Amino acid sequence: MSDTDFDVVGIGNAIVDVLAHAEDTFLEEQDLVKGAMTIVDAATAEKIYGMMGPGIEMSGGSVANTMAGIASLGGSGAFIGKVCKDQLGEVFIRDIRATGVSFTTAPGENGAPTARCLICVTPDAERTMQTFLGACIDLGPEDVDDQVIGASKVVYLEGYLWDPPRAKEAFIKAAKTAEQAGRQVALSLSDPFCVDRHRDEFLDLVDNHVNILFANEDEIKSLYQVGEFDDALQHVRGHCDIAALTRSSQGSVVIASDEVHVLNAEKVDHVVDTTGAGDSYAAGFLYGLTQGKDLASCGRMGGILAAEIISHYGARAENNLKTVLNEKLK
Amino acid sequence: MSDTDFDVVGIGNAIVDVLAHAEDTFLEEQDLVKGAMTIVDAATAEKIYGMMGPGIEMSGGSVANTMAGIASLGGSGAFIGKVCKDQLGEVFIRDIRATGVSFTTAPGENGAPTARCLICVTPDAERTMQTFLGACIDLGPEDVDDQVIGASKVVYLEGYLWDPPRAKEAFIKAAKTAEQAGRQVALSLSDPFCVDRHRDEFLDLVDNHVNILFANEDEIKSLYQVGEFDDALQHVRGHCDIAALTRSSQGSVVIASDEVHVLNAEKVDHVVDTTGAGDSYAAGFLYGLTQGKDLASCGRMGGILAAEIISHYGARAENNLKTVLNEKLK
Repeated sequence: MSDTDFDVVGIGNAIVDVLAHAEDTFLEEQDLVKGAMTIVDAATAEKIYGMMGPGIEMSGGSVANTMAGIASLGGSGAFIGKVCKDQLGEVFIRDIRATGVSFTTAPGENGAPTARCLICVTPDAERTMQTFLGACIDLGPEDVDDQVIGASKVVYLEGYLWDPPRAKEAFIKAAKTAEQAGRQVALSLSDPFCVDRHRDEFLDLVDNHVNILFANEDEIKSLYQVGEFDDALQHVRGHCDIAALTRSSQGSVVIASDEVHVLNAEKVDHVVDTTGAGDSYAAGFLYGLTQGKDLASCGRMGGILAAEIISHYGARAENNLKTVLNEKLK
Repeated sequence: MSDTDFDVVGIGNAIVDVLAHAEDTFLEEQDLVKGAMTIVDAATAEKIYGMMGPGIEMSGGSVANTMAGIASLGGSGAFIGKVCKDQLGEVFIRDIRATGVSFTTAPGENGAPTARCLICVTPDAERTMQTFLGACIDLGPEDVDDQVIGASKVVYLEGYLWDPPRAKEAFIKAAKTAEQAGRQVALSLSDPFCVDRHRDEFLDLVDNHVNILFANEDEIKSLYQVGEFDDALQHVRGHCDIAALTRSSQGSVVIASDEVHVLNAEKVDHVVDTTGAGDSYAAGFLYGLTQGKDLASCGRMGGILAAEIISHYGARAENNLKTVLNEKLK
């Protein structure tokens, strides 16, 4: 394997989050699927946005969050994703670059506006997401820079990319380029409903393209359509080199061909908002992996970062993650 | 392997339990180590017994509880353990036989009285045990019936047997006889403090004699003197054919050379008394194993039985376990 410029290159939906507190009754009244990410059109997004309480805007997007986390840890990264040349697009680009992540994808000129995700955080810290994909639907293989892919140790992709129509072509192109360059391909299953929408394609991906799979318990159970975590574990074993399966308060299970690790969750005094927990886990894990750490350490680093993100509002870190990690690993 | 008369033969301390509710302040005043099993002499047992609140007597003993559970499930079993020819000895023998377990160990004639275990159950459902070993210290290799051992699919031993001086000779004799007959040897580590007392010998046992190891999280961490469950998991892997590691509300992990299962705990509405949880888990697991079930099913059966026992007072089942199991496995 030749030298690399980046530890990880991520490809994902470039999204600005709008976070607001909401009661469970609001979710019921608006018929929102609690805990899930639902794709909505511009009109629905406008309607829900109008009814949400006072919120805050933050750059988001699952893989983009992970890349910001990796950069905060001191890793080097690049992000590929599509915004529009509008105000929120400017915000997104400024934020991702401010974390130290390289971002060079050309913004759309005349298409849909920059994507936004309306996130309702209920008192139980659960987040419910309505995503208007906007400019993300314009991401295509032409946006995938083969040179960046070939120069990154890992290419990390989100399952959400299967929702916009042409992003999957970008996805496949990137995976193949990575394989040819001897790089590793990592995938997050993103969301159990997303898995439901694209199960057959995801099963094929996991079998044929993915080296490192990230999934939470609901997602991996959805992928294999089983009711028990252990059944899913038996299914996933051997279908990719490494599977890192997160289980909320039950920690995570990391399984490789000849290794298994059952890791405790980090203690969190008060869970405020679970938005970004999986993204942060992936950041810690991938950072560890690209630094040559063993799998148990990678899983622990993921757990530490997830604990940081759920103890405050929003999906990007409030603390210097390098300090958080060093503190915990002391 | 030739035909067998018994699914499991257990060797353990034959003990009558005395259960009483107690406040945490009582444990503190009496300097009792919460959650642990402590060996006490006759005078201390007498003193604590005199100060405990109104209690109930029930036949107990870790392996004896497991054997009663296996019999209740429809498995065939035998138990080897030492009582005295006194009233509590009679109670113990009647109870174990009433479950359908074969018991033929000759009671001591003139030695110490039948063992008792004073169990304080605190409001958090935790049990704290003070054991006066009494007649148990007279168990020796002469009590191990080679024919029974050779005629049982599994010989199951408790780590507590390492506390009375001559029982370990019985233990080693039984293990060797089982090996020669092509039977399996199972061991429960019993208690983290027990592991602490006999660590080197237990490490040797696990390496050289034990096919199936039962341990809870504290015990396996104590055995390998590590702070994290996953570190213990890495240590135990490959040191015995099967390790079944219980984790309270986090369920259990079953690991074999080429298999791993991460199983959820069964839901319990209200945990009343954790006495016997590990014993019951072993009962479900060993019953499953001797019925030819796969390891995931064995672990689930263990979990179902543990959930039954902790939902009421005492270490022996209140419900027909066959019915409980069939209901849950439907």
